[in-house]
Amino acid sequence: MAHSQSFIVNGSFEQTVSPLDRGLAYGDGVFRTLIMRNGMPECWPQHYQKLVADCAVIKIVCPSAELLMSDLQQLFMPDETAIAKIIITRGEGERGYAPPAVTSPVRVVIKSKVRAYPDSYFSEGVNLHVCKTPLASQPLLAGVKHLNRLENVLARMEWTDPSIMDGIMLDDHDQVIECTAANIFVCFGDTLITPKLDQCGIAGVTRQRVIDLGHLLGLTVNVENITLPKLLSADVVIITNSIYGALQAKSILQIDWSPTPLAADIRKILQV
Amino acid sequence: MAHSQSFIVNGSFEQTVSPLDRGLAYGDGVFRTLIMRNGMPECWPQHYQKLVADCAVIKIVCPSAELLMSDLQQLFMPDETAIAKIIITRGEGERGYAPPAVTSPVRVVIKSKVRAYPDSYFSEGVNLHVCKTPLASQPLLAGVKHLNRLENVLARMEWTDPSIMDGIMLDDHDQVIECTAANIFVCFGDTLITPKLDQCGIAGVTRQRVIDLGHLLGLTVNVENITLPKLLSADVVIITNSIYGALQAKSILQIDWSPTPLAADIRKILQV
Repeated sequence: MAHSQSFIVNGSFEQTVSPLDRGLAYGDGVFRTLIMRNGMPECWPQHYQKLVADCAVIKIVCPSAELLMSDLQQLFMPDETAIAKIIITRGEGERGYAPPAVTSPVRVVIKSKVRAYPDSYFSEGVNLHVCKTPLASQPLLAGVKHLNRLENVLARMEWTDPSIMDGIMLDDHDQVIECTAANIFVCFGDTLITPKLDQCGIAGVTRQRVIDLGHLLGLTVNVENITLPKLLSADVVIITNSIYGALQAKSILQIDWSPTPLAADIRKILQV
Repeated sequence: MAHSQSFIVNGSFEQTVSPLDRGLAYGDGVFRTLIMRNGMPECWPQHYQKLVADCAVIKIVCPSAELLMSDLQQLFMPDETAIAKIIITRGEGERGYAPPAVTSPVRVVIKSKVRAYPDSYFSEGVNLHVCKTPLASQPLLAGVKHLNRLENVLARMEWTDPSIMDGIMLDDHDQVIECTAANIFVCFGDTLITPKLDQCGIAGVTRQRVIDLGHLLGLTVNVENITLPKLLSADVVIITNSIYGALQAKSILQIDWSPTPLAADIRKILQV
């Protein structure tokens, strides 16, 4: 397969991932996706902190920030802007679910080109599908960006129409949770609301930054349950991730929204 | 890591798994574990049929039985008895959840030694833990032996006591579903009951064979919900998988059971 990605495993261009790795066997690991801008990882303290927290939930000892930074600097040119994906797995194991007494976590860092989004994504907004694939409730893993992502894969396979940018996922109680590859905010007046992620979903770094920084736009940010009808009645719907920052929804089901400055305003505070 | 496993990837001893494989990125694949006895896979038609069915759920085109049999014959000696694990992934992908337009599923076959179980497992039975980690309800993936197995990993990490053989997992409605690495049956008089797996759990080949063959022992087999109190009040509790066939529970929580011939009887009909 000719591919536009390159990678480094455990700091080496020669190493690869063992077929015995528990990341493959069980999805026993976590990951991050972030922008390398001019050779430096954007929001690195937040991303590394989240990586450590996610590893802790599944009891993997997270590699040091220095080691990961060294991997990034080997894989990316000093002035390069591209996308970095960091995968941490529990490493190799013998047969069976019990982790070995001594584990050696494995680091995979993958470089991908920054995809050129259409200008209209930023000027007009994006079309969102509403996924039929529900997110299962699993409080022990909620919020964690782990490698068990089949639900996102099934959800993403629901549409092929290239004019649809992402899909909204609900939990099994019909609460809005996130998009397949983004978090979601709804705006009513001067209040931003993003769903609670204590049952499922991924609590993204950009989501947390919008929660923390929303007041800079004079917005109150609340974390609470949102139903789909409530979302569809919002003044503005925003999706966020670490690659594009924030984008406004242009249409969801039969509902259309006119462009507003909100997504651009959020992208601006994310530069702070 | 010195390990007791060997493997073959896509029919080659030289190939390995790409760090870009979606099996690693998302757990985007399925697997089987079975016994190779004297160089031949036990219950191969059932295992292959289940592999095809599981692949179909997540829309992977399952490699042909001939290809997989050729992999097995390369990896195992003609008279060898050992454990085979077959992993099928969707193969490499570009960044993002959407599968590539054209995919090349990847086959990994792993050989492990047959673990020598203590004789007491067969003569007296085994001790089972009751796991706190719940299985999330996801009807779209229920029954499928896919690579998203973090719940099993978390559940298996709940105990280190080597006298405990496996752990019973409940769903989020406190229904008994399975063990971390086995299915479960309870016996009342001449009725065997095994839990419904329409919300979560893995529908194992051995479970299905016991359902199909139980009548040979004069047993009626029902598939229905079982609560933990009901399980604890059973005459006999049996766990099943493709490696050991069937074992009786000796103790669960504070409840003890005396040995009965049931597990041996089930192992006998599984030889048919």
